[in-house]
Amino acid sequence: MYPYIEGVGRMFDIQLDKNSNTPLYMQVYDYFKNLIENNNIGNTKLPSIRSLAKKLKVNNVTIVNAYRLLEQEGYVYSIKGSGTYVKIMPDPEYLPYLEEGDVELMVSGILPLSKDNINFASISPTPLLFPIEEFKKSLVEVLDRDGAHAFLYPEVSGYEPLRESISKFLFMNYDIKIDKNQILITSGGQQALDIVAKALINTGDTIFVENPTYSGAIASFNSRGARVRGIPILNDGIDLDLLDHYVKREKPKFLYIMTNYQSPTTYSYSKAKKKELLKMASKYDFYIIEDDFLTDLNYDNEKRYPLKSMDTENRVIFIKSFSKIFMPGIRIGFLTLSKNLYGDIIKAKHTTDISSSGFLQRAFDHYLRTGYWKNYIERVRSDYARKYRLMVSELEKFKKFFISYVPPNGGISIWLNLPAGIDALDLYEECQKNNLSIVPGIVFFIDETINMNYIRLSFGAIHDDEIVKGMKTLYEIISKMFVNLQSDYMPFI
Amino acid sequence: MYPYIEGVGRMFDIQLDKNSNTPLYMQVYDYFKNLIENNNIGNTKLPSIRSLAKKLKVNNVTIVNAYRLLEQEGYVYSIKGSGTYVKIMPDPEYLPYLEEGDVELMVSGILPLSKDNINFASISPTPLLFPIEEFKKSLVEVLDRDGAHAFLYPEVSGYEPLRESISKFLFMNYDIKIDKNQILITSGGQQALDIVAKALINTGDTIFVENPTYSGAIASFNSRGARVRGIPILNDGIDLDLLDHYVKREKPKFLYIMTNYQSPTTYSYSKAKKKELLKMASKYDFYIIEDDFLTDLNYDNEKRYPLKSMDTENRVIFIKSFSKIFMPGIRIGFLTLSKNLYGDIIKAKHTTDISSSGFLQRAFDHYLRTGYWKNYIERVRSDYARKYRLMVSELEKFKKFFISYVPPNGGISIWLNLPAGIDALDLYEECQKNNLSIVPGIVFFIDETINMNYIRLSFGAIHDDEIVKGMKTLYEIISKMFVNLQSDYMPFI
Repeated sequence: MYPYIEGVGRMFDIQLDKNSNTPLYMQVYDYFKNLIENNNIGNTKLPSIRSLAKKLKVNNVTIVNAYRLLEQEGYVYSIKGSGTYVKIMPDPEYLPYLEEGDVELMVSGILPLSKDNINFASISPTPLLFPIEEFKKSLVEVLDRDGAHAFLYPEVSGYEPLRESISKFLFMNYDIKIDKNQILITSGGQQALDIVAKALINTGDTIFVENPTYSGAIASFNSRGARVRGIPILNDGIDLDLLDHYVKREKPKFLYIMTNYQSPTTYSYSKAKKKELLKMASKYDFYIIEDDFLTDLNYDNEKRYPLKSMDTENRVIFIKSFSKIFMPGIRIGFLTLSKNLYGDIIKAKHTTDISSSGFLQRAFDHYLRTGYWKNYIERVRSDYARKYRLMVSELEKFKKFFISYVPPNGGISIWLNLPAGIDALDLYEECQKNNLSIVPGIVFFIDETINMNYIRLSFGAIHDDEIVKGMKTLYEIISKMFVNLQSDYMPFI
Repeated sequence: MYPYIEGVGRMFDIQLDKNSNTPLYMQVYDYFKNLIENNNIGNTKLPSIRSLAKKLKVNNVTIVNAYRLLEQEGYVYSIKGSGTYVKIMPDPEYLPYLEEGDVELMVSGILPLSKDNINFASISPTPLLFPIEEFKKSLVEVLDRDGAHAFLYPEVSGYEPLRESISKFLFMNYDIKIDKNQILITSGGQQALDIVAKALINTGDTIFVENPTYSGAIASFNSRGARVRGIPILNDGIDLDLLDHYVKREKPKFLYIMTNYQSPTTYSYSKAKKKELLKMASKYDFYIIEDDFLTDLNYDNEKRYPLKSMDTENRVIFIKSFSKIFMPGIRIGFLTLSKNLYGDIIKAKHTTDISSSGFLQRAFDHYLRTGYWKNYIERVRSDYARKYRLMVSELEKFKKFFISYVPPNGGISIWLNLPAGIDALDLYEECQKNNLSIVPGIVFFIDETINMNYIRLSFGAIHDDEIVKGMKTLYEIISKMFVNLQSDYMPFI
């Protein structure tokens, strides 16, 4: 069904220059890109990640990144449990297939999703919780109320009553005091990142991020020609000692962080660390971009607040996405503006798409004002909390494999640390063969300086019975790998 | 009411360096920016454009551009018929006020709009023509049909059935044959420009544009660090001789054009020129970005087609906005992709905002499939045609002032060439004092090498009786200027 030339690896002649300014993965990417563009090798299988890494004497992640980029750029595609193949270029049917439903996986590119899989990879919310009837009422009532005006351009900064509603929302829910004139409505959280990148980053600027982090943010920063430095994130927030060390040397334009249920680690910042971080930002004069998409989903009694609520000097640009906690399809997010950045940010928004849909802004404003939100978010929180507890109870029996995690008590994912003997990429490949989608942590790391042997399991969009079934499959796969691992130490059996 | 220090110009000490790499207007901008940031001079009046230009021995447009940028960045604001004032910085109430309703004027920044004005400046469509009842039906039927799925992420390239509908739309209306897999849905035309800029432009690349052109495009290209070269546009399209001259010297990444009812000139390309242009693009190997927002509004028997319909080599990236011919609030536009650009463009879209609202895409697709479009666009065309003919008849009596124009026979604007004695900026200022908004052509020009003494009158959003009233006011203003002009030649009266 998928013809390919076995052992085609033999025809490759890649020369890597380890002293070059071009990163190794870009060199690998460039090699294949040229090969594919100049030769008719559609459906040729690329060498496996492991074999090529071994041959070139580089880390696996170098090859993962090169293949990921090739896939993003539409040169190759991957087939579950089989490998990576060159696309047949001139046929539009082979244009890169991008699946509905997931943000980070579409960015990471290496994970094709299939609908009959059990999908622990997707961080999409479940549509079962979408308040369609209530939102439909808002849509219709707004149309009856505003008529054609609902379809004119709103202000670039966003529909004023919605900015007012969000100002109240921020005060009621997070204890953040922000005037409606310091809020910019965006078409989702990713656009907020893109706009901040446009307004703040010039080619060559240094940006600090948590390592690992959200790949969509890195893509935005890279697109503006930034140098991105990853600072390890610990259980209670970013490593402040390392941050202090690098911040003195490299003067970052800003630091990009997620303070509650960070993606992908699920870690939350301690209050002490937040205070310390704000002090450091003041001392060394840098901005902090705080990206919040899950704060509302806490399952314990400890209500969490964004860093922004403690920000007295207006050093924090707070970005909020409603895609995970409400519905991705409304494409509404926002960011808070400090006065000195207002002009640059508004200009960047205007250049990006003039303004976000005034109609959807009016409908969402109506939804918030009608008072639907409180019941809605409680319903969602209790549903995800039930799934979270189910995951935690299923994970009990994985302890014997020395698999550990920090309980996030919130959010829609769990970040599992694997023991040295079980490689996350091996596990990922085994799962794929068994119709189980998980994410190998490696795709979220900026560089290879720290332990990357993690997997992420997200449970937001999976039914309870599928969670049980999926965790059973995962248990069986790991059991086998664990037995093989132990038998490696008994060579004469 | 607006306190200011008369003659504050005396305290200014601007030194311009005419040999510097920094453009003169940026030097003027920088001077005032620093002055404002470092001094508490809120509500101080800036010198008039003319007096400062004279003092610094630069062209008026240099000062216009500097003040425009200051206003965009939120440092100053302008008051009709009075002048430009420094904002009181720390008060959020003084954050730059951006008015609903107009694209280019918000970009140009120098034109505050007021609702009781007669507004020949706005190129917004009139909400009276929006098909609200029909579109509401589509919205509701899509919700009943698709439920929660309407609010999931669609594919990055756009909701597949909508891409299919648009593929048909292109074939039926413009004779363009494009597969649905070569279409990318965007959040309006400006986002399409932004995405093309992201995917194609690297710092230092040269981009060619028509001169004058749409300022929102220039903003996108500049934001990516492009060098922008303007090529004059003539009555029948871009000046091919000059294009040939520069294209050999400067190897542009692409040429950005509007072939039908160009903005701001309203000129359309002749068929011969289109053919010639495609030949040239092939010979010198550059892309053409064709931006189409008005092709559908022709008022004569000569149906116009986009350049894309003649493009056999896939050199034309065709961008279409529905903001002017349908409703800005749906924020739907699209671009066509050539295969070799697909990966870069999809990646840029994803980094920009993940995807455009799936819900609005589904509703617009439903609207197109239900067959509403044909009647709708005929209704709009006939309404705008009536207004156009009214404008043309009103303009008859302006001939005696030696004011001329090329009848566009389509679109929603008329581009008037003023005689040498009547300066467009003077006229603009006089109109502002009389509650009449027009656009001085100067804001659309890239450089000062050609005659810029034009004004643009747009009539799309104005009632018929207001058109008559507004043209009467304009006539009176010009009459007075014309009399003064003639009396200048009779110094001893």
